[in-house]
Amino acid sequence: MHASEEAQTESDASRSTDQETPARREFLRRGITAGGAAVLAGLAPESRAAAATPQWMTRPGQPFSNYGLPSPHEKAVIRLIAANSAVSGNGLSWTPLHDLEGTLTPNGLHFERHHNGVPQIDPAGHRLYLHGLFERSLSFGVDDLLRYPMVSQQCFIECGGNSNSGWNEEPLQAPAGSLHGLASCSEWTGVPLSVILEECGLHPDAQWLIAEGADAAAMNVSIPIGKARGDALLALYQNGERLRPENGYPLRLVLPGWEGVLSVKWLRRLQAATEPVMARNETARYTELLPSGKARQFTFVIEAKSVITRPSPGQHLAAPGWYPISGLAWSGRGVIKRVEVSTDGGKSWIDANLQTPVLPRCFTRFRLPWRWNGESCILQSRATDETGYVQPTRPALIAERGRHGYFHYNAIVSWEVSEDGSLSHVYA
Amino acid sequence: MHASEEAQTESDASRSTDQETPARREFLRRGITAGGAAVLAGLAPESRAAAATPQWMTRPGQPFSNYGLPSPHEKAVIRLIAANSAVSGNGLSWTPLHDLEGTLTPNGLHFERHHNGVPQIDPAGHRLYLHGLFERSLSFGVDDLLRYPMVSQQCFIECGGNSNSGWNEEPLQAPAGSLHGLASCSEWTGVPLSVILEECGLHPDAQWLIAEGADAAAMNVSIPIGKARGDALLALYQNGERLRPENGYPLRLVLPGWEGVLSVKWLRRLQAATEPVMARNETARYTELLPSGKARQFTFVIEAKSVITRPSPGQHLAAPGWYPISGLAWSGRGVIKRVEVSTDGGKSWIDANLQTPVLPRCFTRFRLPWRWNGESCILQSRATDETGYVQPTRPALIAERGRHGYFHYNAIVSWEVSEDGSLSHVYA
Repeated sequence: MHASEEAQTESDASRSTDQETPARREFLRRGITAGGAAVLAGLAPESRAAAATPQWMTRPGQPFSNYGLPSPHEKAVIRLIAANSAVSGNGLSWTPLHDLEGTLTPNGLHFERHHNGVPQIDPAGHRLYLHGLFERSLSFGVDDLLRYPMVSQQCFIECGGNSNSGWNEEPLQAPAGSLHGLASCSEWTGVPLSVILEECGLHPDAQWLIAEGADAAAMNVSIPIGKARGDALLALYQNGERLRPENGYPLRLVLPGWEGVLSVKWLRRLQAATEPVMARNETARYTELLPSGKARQFTFVIEAKSVITRPSPGQHLAAPGWYPISGLAWSGRGVIKRVEVSTDGGKSWIDANLQTPVLPRCFTRFRLPWRWNGESCILQSRATDETGYVQPTRPALIAERGRHGYFHYNAIVSWEVSEDGSLSHVYA
Repeated sequence: MHASEEAQTESDASRSTDQETPARREFLRRGITAGGAAVLAGLAPESRAAAATPQWMTRPGQPFSNYGLPSPHEKAVIRLIAANSAVSGNGLSWTPLHDLEGTLTPNGLHFERHHNGVPQIDPAGHRLYLHGLFERSLSFGVDDLLRYPMVSQQCFIECGGNSNSGWNEEPLQAPAGSLHGLASCSEWTGVPLSVILEECGLHPDAQWLIAEGADAAAMNVSIPIGKARGDALLALYQNGERLRPENGYPLRLVLPGWEGVLSVKWLRRLQAATEPVMARNETARYTELLPSGKARQFTFVIEAKSVITRPSPGQHLAAPGWYPISGLAWSGRGVIKRVEVSTDGGKSWIDANLQTPVLPRCFTRFRLPWRWNGESCILQSRATDETGYVQPTRPALIAERGRHGYFHYNAIVSWEVSEDGSLSHVYA
């Protein structure tokens, strides 16, 4: 049985940890050479403690705070911004995945994609309008929505344009977060959209919901009615607190597992219709010519993908020895069943440990201890989801999608480790 | 079958939502009177949209940000601080549970309990020392620990003194967070303590680990070796990012399900010993005289408890009608199996919906739609955990623990709704 399968069938709910692997057992057997710990044997405890007393133990610390912030020593852990200077507030910022661990994204680091900046909305003046093919056209203030039954759902949101530098002829050199960080994972809480559609009496002829945001771009998209009546959420809270402005405060449509452009921020309008609206983001964008001459359109679901976040470009291996390989895998189709890791450019693969609980449409953390022998090598990860879909190689993805691709790039990512311990992005 | 049991046996992992209940079905059947939505039928969509165009759609929004913050309209959602003016940095701050939803606590709002302020630690100068009954006395820098295998675990941390105003003769009037908010829930990621104990060669005679923090108080406690070798975690990350300073940056010991004082922040020292250290926080504090004349000491585990966060004191019901009852339940012994809600002061109870996935030693969100008839009434919640332990009434807790109790108060909480829609804390 593979380690990843064991993770799936884990029956002991009392502890969520990685599973044992031969590599981990070897790691432990080999002991202290791994972590580079200093051997202190021979010093008496008292002298050790006294010698080590740091300056911050010699005086009272900082006061309490009403709302905490990261340590000043973590000031480099930020969203990296790429804004379009021609259009105010048009651009994006990436989650620094290479600096994070676990499965959740803190709210301050959730990726951004805006078309005309972040509207500063007074929730008292914000309403959601439902109109079109409903028995009743209704509008809801935030306080109204807060009186409806709520649910919470942990899920990732990923921009359909994430990772799209992978279509470039040459591999872009950038940190893992700047290549793949238009994806973040949060616990969203709000009112199921299905409840509000029922409240308004959705007409059986309605096939699409046209959603519009309250930003200055009035960003809009079309959503198939099945998804709208399924797990779509009118989210009011993110990771416990009310939404952040850049994530749609006070109201965001969240469509778990589907490309992020559909999770409309600052949601103000839902029109039920028989046809899609054919908005810019489903015609000029998100429509792609295939090698067959046909075009892809309305390609909503995020297919399985994965990326090693540690080690990754910009990080450095100090010397040969043991290092943790750690990364993220996710699939819009449900649960990640398996992540394999290769340290020889895809010639051989070993199952990584999957952090439990493995939740559907969520970031899944995979980890594997790895002993670097000091030679140049190529690290890769390959995700498989519950449908059996396997993350493709780059050549396979290009064979299917051609050279006109821009969105939904999900090929296997390759990091090359050089003999000097540096890492770079390669196609392999 | 109870709704809460259904939640436990839910086999369809494709969606995590609350379960249907008769109350919810009635809620939906009764329709739009519930949420107070405005009926807009009769207006053409175009005129509706035009009439409603808010000012924030008329100009570009705010720019991208490297690290996001809550909306200015949420500035009242803060930790409430109670500091001891006699000792610098001695005090606490509460998580505003009454303002939050879902199961996670954002890092900026995680409760604080400090004895001498928040040390501003440079991680490059921080080390963890292990000494005493080990084959090898070792020390580990943060970079050393980052090379060991990691795990992630979502769990609550609760101060043993949380809710202790419940021992007062008269019910304290304060928001739910200020009464019960010395409890928060996060995803912690780090190195299992067991791995580091193995690395140092823990001696079989060791029965306790004495843990010390790098704050100016050098706060220390004793931890039974079984817990240390079990699920104890050397946490480096909280909700995806590195720990916040007020939660132990750069290193915190996390003991899932045990009273918070044991999850030593700014961890710098672990001494393996045959006896506990008998620190102030296990003798002068956390030792309590029982009615029998015996004393409780080393009462580590947090027993099951729950509190309704919405509606709760400080909130207001505008008029009779449907309202969501929403709250949190947790148990240090594992999974919450059931939460019952009473709206008549404990005469009758109905099972609330439990938000799935229900994780062990985590906040569990419970919800129930409720129709307020406009009369005075008393709201209560009662949690049951996987051991069968049922949250006690206040008289039962006092009968067991006497009037000298201070820590581990977990009795059923009662909110009285007055005819004017205001809420207050009562003993019932």
